[in-house]
Amino acid sequence: MAARPHGVAADAGAGSPVPSSPLAAAANRLLEGRRLILASNRGPVSFSASADGTLRPRRGSGGVVTALSQVSGQVPLTWVAAAMSDADRRAAGDHDLLDRSTPQADLRLRFATVPRSTFEAAYNVIANPLLWFLQHEMWNLPERPMVGQGTRRAWREGYVKLNAAFAAEVLAQVPRRDRAPRIMLHDYHLYLAAEPIRAARPEAVLSHFTHIPWPPSSLWQVMPPEIREAVCRGLLANDVVGFQTARYGHNFMRSVESFLPDATVDYRRRVVTRGGHRTAVRAYPISIDVAATRRVASSLAARRRAEELLASSSEKVIVRVDRLEPSKNILRGFIAFEALLDRQPSLRDRVTFLAFLVPSRTSIGEYRDYGRKVRDVADRLNARFGRAGRQVVRIFYENNYPQALAGLAIADLVLVNPLIDGMNLVAKEAVVVSERDAAIVLSETAGAYDQMADGVLSVAPADLVGTAEAMARGLAMPREERRARLERLRSGVEREDVRWWLQRQLDDLGRVVARRPVRPRR
Amino acid sequence: MAARPHGVAADAGAGSPVPSSPLAAAANRLLEGRRLILASNRGPVSFSASADGTLRPRRGSGGVVTALSQVSGQVPLTWVAAAMSDADRRAAGDHDLLDRSTPQADLRLRFATVPRSTFEAAYNVIANPLLWFLQHEMWNLPERPMVGQGTRRAWREGYVKLNAAFAAEVLAQVPRRDRAPRIMLHDYHLYLAAEPIRAARPEAVLSHFTHIPWPPSSLWQVMPPEIREAVCRGLLANDVVGFQTARYGHNFMRSVESFLPDATVDYRRRVVTRGGHRTAVRAYPISIDVAATRRVASSLAARRRAEELLASSSEKVIVRVDRLEPSKNILRGFIAFEALLDRQPSLRDRVTFLAFLVPSRTSIGEYRDYGRKVRDVADRLNARFGRAGRQVVRIFYENNYPQALAGLAIADLVLVNPLIDGMNLVAKEAVVVSERDAAIVLSETAGAYDQMADGVLSVAPADLVGTAEAMARGLAMPREERRARLERLRSGVEREDVRWWLQRQLDDLGRVVARRPVRPRR
Repeated sequence: MAARPHGVAADAGAGSPVPSSPLAAAANRLLEGRRLILASNRGPVSFSASADGTLRPRRGSGGVVTALSQVSGQVPLTWVAAAMSDADRRAAGDHDLLDRSTPQADLRLRFATVPRSTFEAAYNVIANPLLWFLQHEMWNLPERPMVGQGTRRAWREGYVKLNAAFAAEVLAQVPRRDRAPRIMLHDYHLYLAAEPIRAARPEAVLSHFTHIPWPPSSLWQVMPPEIREAVCRGLLANDVVGFQTARYGHNFMRSVESFLPDATVDYRRRVVTRGGHRTAVRAYPISIDVAATRRVASSLAARRRAEELLASSSEKVIVRVDRLEPSKNILRGFIAFEALLDRQPSLRDRVTFLAFLVPSRTSIGEYRDYGRKVRDVADRLNARFGRAGRQVVRIFYENNYPQALAGLAIADLVLVNPLIDGMNLVAKEAVVVSERDAAIVLSETAGAYDQMADGVLSVAPADLVGTAEAMARGLAMPREERRARLERLRSGVEREDVRWWLQRQLDDLGRVVARRPVRPRR
Repeated sequence: MAARPHGVAADAGAGSPVPSSPLAAAANRLLEGRRLILASNRGPVSFSASADGTLRPRRGSGGVVTALSQVSGQVPLTWVAAAMSDADRRAAGDHDLLDRSTPQADLRLRFATVPRSTFEAAYNVIANPLLWFLQHEMWNLPERPMVGQGTRRAWREGYVKLNAAFAAEVLAQVPRRDRAPRIMLHDYHLYLAAEPIRAARPEAVLSHFTHIPWPPSSLWQVMPPEIREAVCRGLLANDVVGFQTARYGHNFMRSVESFLPDATVDYRRRVVTRGGHRTAVRAYPISIDVAATRRVASSLAARRRAEELLASSSEKVIVRVDRLEPSKNILRGFIAFEALLDRQPSLRDRVTFLAFLVPSRTSIGEYRDYGRKVRDVADRLNARFGRAGRQVVRIFYENNYPQALAGLAIADLVLVNPLIDGMNLVAKEAVVVSERDAAIVLSETAGAYDQMADGVLSVAPADLVGTAEAMARGLAMPREERRARLERLRSGVEREDVRWWLQRQLDDLGRVVARRPVRPRR
């Protein structure tokens, strides 16, 4: 997703609640009068301290928060997030402050709180470098990762404890007499939270959704058994585990089969059984809030920016929008563009490549190195092909969501060529905001490809020649064909939007409830 | 396999032909009076030119040649290999010379010949960097591979043409009236050879065996469709495709399902059907020639070297034998040893780590860089823990097979911790030559692990702590337990040796023949 500045995300999140929507109906059916409990690393609000020490709430940002915010305003919701900063940790105990700070009356925020060093170990040693790189297949395996004592300690003293704190805070939110609370856990920070919750409330209705890819089991196999087994076991404490695509779900089942000899996998029914407990493995491709995306794209700020961008670009505009992140394959995108300009010199004066790159994880060395290489290649292209006052590649290195949508709106071609990507929402955003019938070039290895294959120009991410050819084909494609492709894609994105993503999860949890033997509530 | 110097390999290869062996019987059943035709990149003999231009034959080396040599001497065999040098290309046309140069009368050598630049493109652009790295999951994906015009050209003008030359040479060896020649193709250099052979002889009985891992399809997915589809299609022209383990076979079937929509995969029966043709997918774990290995280990040279090594080492000896190759995970092995010495200072004077590292592919930058890092870490360990005149890590950087077996013979612990490995024969060699009841530490990600799990100490290759712990456990293990483990392993290796590997392939090809409708031979 085009990363959003604070504020816009919350706007998008709170957008268009329709009380009688199918989503609200599914939620109400599932909850039977309860509050829904949701847990994710980031929450709808975080805090900062002003100079005098006063705690100030800030709307949360990021794709997961934006997607999950769909459910708030529809049903009574308790959202447990990690206290990520000292200000969050201070706010954690002040429930009045937390209750006042959320954007909706029926949204209750609570923090899972651990000491700073515990959180840092979980987040900056395990989740973001280790699990993120593993699950995005980004390790240079001969040299990384080196899972030594430090990593083992960060696992035990950081990740495990943060998950335990999440479980404790979730349980603290469950009314004493509720034997079967409805709980949704989200993403790779929380693989271990379900097990202690299940232990305390054996009848809890629990789901986990992994927003990032689940790689083949051979990648998990290089990791210490202690870690990979705990992750698989932890996930199997849920009733439903969701992934972005069926392929990731399959990889998960293969991992379970490889690492947990006491689990039984039924690939056809997509069910894993372990210790008498049954876990359904499902695919829920995430999407965008179409109306909210269009609202931002048609804002005055975005409109003005679109005009400026168009005025300062050549006749044809290629656009990419990405966090500056190695898995996004930005480097090969530029090199393929260079190959295109080498092959078709006539394009050199006719095409501008606008790259909206959002700063990301600049504390991780690999990200900084990658960013430098990206800028070096852009400089090379401009040195080779630029004219006085006009660059062929322009990098916008900032978190500016309306500007990014403005770029997508005016694009003739949108390049989305990640090496691997859980979903990739930029491709879906481009579909709904495009004003010049953009051709969309999309990696087969993005989760979004499974839904969008019949409207995009596909590329294999390491294939520079194929990527250059796809760009050439997209730029040369007659407008009618581009429009027909976009229309197909648009109807898909409108139908399978973020509410559809959430509703299907709620429906499946409802099925879990329906399968349970009926027991009177205490 | 411990890399063998020229000469030893051929000895091992020609070792102990038993005319009435089950292997010979299987071959004779299959062949029905024909010659077996075998194709692999390296052959049983290669040529060099002496100063006066005379061509001199040299026995071939390498694991594939050693394994395949089992069949020569047992049945009439025609072996087609690549002409890898100018001398080979000169020798290719002189069939008398070729016929005189093979170690057995009934072994006929022929060369598949392409111009030098064609071979170099196939071998040094496609096979060894691209396919090897891909199949060993060794790419640092954000930056490699960059599959540009040069790679595409090397594919079309190198790899495709070399495979066509192999097919043509194989076909030239088939008697005109033989509708169903028996042909075995070997390894990742020859993925495309079966298709043209099948086109010319639709009833040919064809197998292909991949000696290296077959990775998950998501790794192939980053490659140009042209390449990954051609590889899958090419393999499906065989009647049987063999892999080292069932897991690699499964990965292959998933790749076919992902990339060839016109193929049908039956995972349970392990059969792929495409265009009316049926391909069985089988696992044949390769092994060693037990008698030949023991013969070298008990040679005078090896015995003497064993005594010297023992005399110059500390009380306990850890040994590893590997090509100096990033997939072998040598770096983490040393770092784990360092962690062990940090944790158990008493071991510092009591353990010597002997690393027999065989030079390999020094023309590839990644290999040179990796070698430097390996030596740097060894230097660090010696600076930290060495005493005057005694190093804790000694590197033997040479191709000296008797010395490597001598090392394995005297080891108290053999470390085999590859990141990934098609099979890894060092683990099997250690089992049969060990004289001090070595404990064997083995990566779960080595193909050999599937057969050896119940006798080894297993490690996950990125797990430094686990690797250090396995070494500590192995060094402290009572001799009776080590002996009991080795005895279990030994009976497995003796039973499932290299002849067993080959015989099972011949038996399965025999089943292909049996399934064919009976047609009178012309």
